[in-house]
Amino acid sequence: MDLSYFTDKLSASLSGLSYGEQPTTLYEPIRYIMALGGKRIRPVLTLLGAHLFTDELDAVVKPALATEVFHNFTLLHDDLMDQAPLRRGQATVHEKWNPNVAILSGDVMLVRAYELLLDVPPHLLAHVLRRFSQTAAEVCEGQQWDMNFETETEVSIDQYLDMIRLKTAVLLGFALELGALLAGASREDADHLRQFGVGIGLAFQLRDDLLDVYGDAATFGKRVGGDIVSDKKTYLLLTAQAQASEAQRATLARHIGQPVPDADAKVRAVRAIYDELEIRPQTEELINRHFLDALQHLERVAAPETRKKPLHQLALQLLEREQ
Amino acid sequence: MDLSYFTDKLSASLSGLSYGEQPTTLYEPIRYIMALGGKRIRPVLTLLGAHLFTDELDAVVKPALATEVFHNFTLLHDDLMDQAPLRRGQATVHEKWNPNVAILSGDVMLVRAYELLLDVPPHLLAHVLRRFSQTAAEVCEGQQWDMNFETETEVSIDQYLDMIRLKTAVLLGFALELGALLAGASREDADHLRQFGVGIGLAFQLRDDLLDVYGDAATFGKRVGGDIVSDKKTYLLLTAQAQASEAQRATLARHIGQPVPDADAKVRAVRAIYDELEIRPQTEELINRHFLDALQHLERVAAPETRKKPLHQLALQLLEREQ
Repeated sequence: MDLSYFTDKLSASLSGLSYGEQPTTLYEPIRYIMALGGKRIRPVLTLLGAHLFTDELDAVVKPALATEVFHNFTLLHDDLMDQAPLRRGQATVHEKWNPNVAILSGDVMLVRAYELLLDVPPHLLAHVLRRFSQTAAEVCEGQQWDMNFETETEVSIDQYLDMIRLKTAVLLGFALELGALLAGASREDADHLRQFGVGIGLAFQLRDDLLDVYGDAATFGKRVGGDIVSDKKTYLLLTAQAQASEAQRATLARHIGQPVPDADAKVRAVRAIYDELEIRPQTEELINRHFLDALQHLERVAAPETRKKPLHQLALQLLEREQ
Repeated sequence: MDLSYFTDKLSASLSGLSYGEQPTTLYEPIRYIMALGGKRIRPVLTLLGAHLFTDELDAVVKPALATEVFHNFTLLHDDLMDQAPLRRGQATVHEKWNPNVAILSGDVMLVRAYELLLDVPPHLLAHVLRRFSQTAAEVCEGQQWDMNFETETEVSIDQYLDMIRLKTAVLLGFALELGALLAGASREDADHLRQFGVGIGLAFQLRDDLLDVYGDAATFGKRVGGDIVSDKKTYLLLTAQAQASEAQRATLARHIGQPVPDADAKVRAVRAIYDELEIRPQTEELINRHFLDALQHLERVAAPETRKKPLHQLALQLLEREQ
């Protein structure tokens, strides 16, 4: 089964979703951000999680979209908090309208995400909503940690990994778990799938950190070195700071958190230290470890190997690895 | 049964609620705003709604608190949107912390409100959450209309009444409906109770508009005439504008929406026109109509008259009428 089978199933339903009509200042921004596109990875994961156990996916589509609406709610509020001007190359909601519209439209999106989950069979509903709520709160916790880290001087590597787990990985895990639960899988299988998703999410985020420094400018889509220029405490920087010699630490301190006359020189200097400390292979090793750990959880799921193939394929795509 | 029986039942549970621990920048603001106090009218209404049909209120307390957490979520985000410095005489969350903390703490409060509803019996859960979600979206719509009205030149009286219904009244209605549903009442009784709550809410908000102009400064708690000074489009102003003669309309236009050298003179001038047009008795009549309409819905609820007394009493208290 090709991935496009699942994305096609979603896109028809997604474009048919109604969020509300009046006042338009409340609902137009929701339609706007939902139409900006994206890979719809979360609902695809929900369908793939369900498809491990069943061919009956029609009842899974609407709850699957809850994860996409929720994800876009977090983007809307995060963009406002980060004062980001652009999202997928278009003006962000707080820029196109205003901050208040962004707050309130986001609030309604969170409500609509819950509503999309209410068609879940009654015997599963409380459990699904409890897991969704826990995940939603964790995503907020991750965003708060991320904002806290901007002004904190001491952030440990473990704190950073926990932040990206909360901010990014747990929602991928929940999306898969949701699919499994809806397809009637055991709680044990649903939890293995969740852990598969969390592992893939961690690997994906670490790879994003890596590409920021070592990616190909032509394919990465963002400015290479952007994290270094903005002093972002990534896995690479925190690891370098933890392993640096006195001299290297002094060099880092001269560049990180200081006004920058020459951004390219800053990127070169910090990357030189990363190279000396072999931060790249260390990061690749950690990505590998999370990827392999994720695959082990997928293996333990009691479903036919052939049905696991699309999940495997998607994980490889997400991490842009050779098949 | 005295009202204090119900408020006591709530306050123990409310102070025992746990919203989360880490990061403290996310959860401390929630504890802060929930501890600011208030009359806890919404969860009291839920208990009173349930008590019409049952003495078993223990299972109702936690879902009842969902309405209070939700209400405080709206206060938190509304205060940020309105840039209000104070809430119940204390610094608002965005003032005491910062706007981003207010956004994200509010988001988690909405999640926690949903979580408090998850103990509802499985056969009621989907219906309760659908009604809660509809109510939550309506409250957001009301807030958006309220903000829109600030910059719109033409607001009709019907639009204004619909705004206060959405922003204030529907949540009071839902709180009562929730209590009835949890106590096993019929959908019909639950809906009459909901309409009772909506009517009381409308009357309450109109009374608030009236007290702003005609209240006793010593007991009103806010500055008398504040709505006039800030050009707020209240029921009184919109009715006056609709009924004004050419000359009165010109006087209103000289004061409303203009820079004010003398706020007291502005309040006196606008109030003089209200007096000429008999806006006060007209408003009192509309309050009365909503109050009586509400009572008719309460009468139709199939529950013993004695059990309706506390609801009656609370409605009278809210409207500060003679018993």
